[in-house]
Amino acid sequence: MTYYMAATLNVPFDEAIARTENALKTEGFGVLTRIDVHETLKAKINVDFPAYTILGACNPQLAHEALQIENKVGTMLPCNVVVQQISDDEVEVAAVNPVASMQAIDNPQLEKAADTVREKLARVIGLLNNA
Amino acid sequence: MTYYMAATLNVPFDEAIARTENALKTEGFGVLTRIDVHETLKAKINVDFPAYTILGACNPQLAHEALQIENKVGTMLPCNVVVQQISDDEVEVAAVNPVASMQAIDNPQLEKAADTVREKLARVIGLLNNA
Repeated sequence: MTYYMAATLNVPFDEAIARTENALKTEGFGVLTRIDVHETLKAKINVDFPAYTILGACNPQLAHEALQIENKVGTMLPCNVVVQQISDDEVEVAAVNPVASMQAIDNPQLEKAADTVREKLARVIGLLNNA
Repeated sequence: MTYYMAATLNVPFDEAIARTENALKTEGFGVLTRIDVHETLKAKINVDFPAYTILGACNPQLAHEALQIENKVGTMLPCNVVVQQISDDEVEVAAVNPVASMQAIDNPQLEKAADTVREKLARVIGLLNNA
């Protein structure tokens, strides 16, 4: 099972982030956390890393449902979407496949909920591919 | 494979968070993100949920190593530690087992790196259990 779903965009990095946030919004995901990996690695260990941002995306209804099914599922929430510069003119957007990341959780009800989220994130990536 | 490692603390919720952050520090983890699930669910969908915080823990050296081995591993970073009130006087701290969450990633080198992180998080939980 592939652990992510990805789209490649030929737009500037910041524009890729804005498009990703908009696409997430169409499926009910807000962005709860945002890690600028480039800045973090520079500040903490003085390493030069390409532009790389981790967006923590959360659909509150579905997150609430998952938390009721499995109270420690928060160890795998929110669903991350990575935006990274992969060449001078290409930015890749990769959303986690929650069915893959949660496969170690032995709970069939949760698996069903994760699959609903996977479908939504697949539509987000589809939107970005077709923009 | 269990997907988390947990400790139960008989201290107030905020004290449990402070102890968790201190224990994480001893193994080189900083807290990059913090989601107050209780507040978020109240604000977004008006649901009453118990005290539940997701800390996003990151050891910058090990994160950098993992990102070089597998450039989309950011879909599963940082390593989450859930702090939740489970009864009137008990707070549970559960750290993700990164070997479990990353098992869908077919990359033996990453598996080794994830195991190093798992060992460190196990020591963090051990510290909390013995405090």
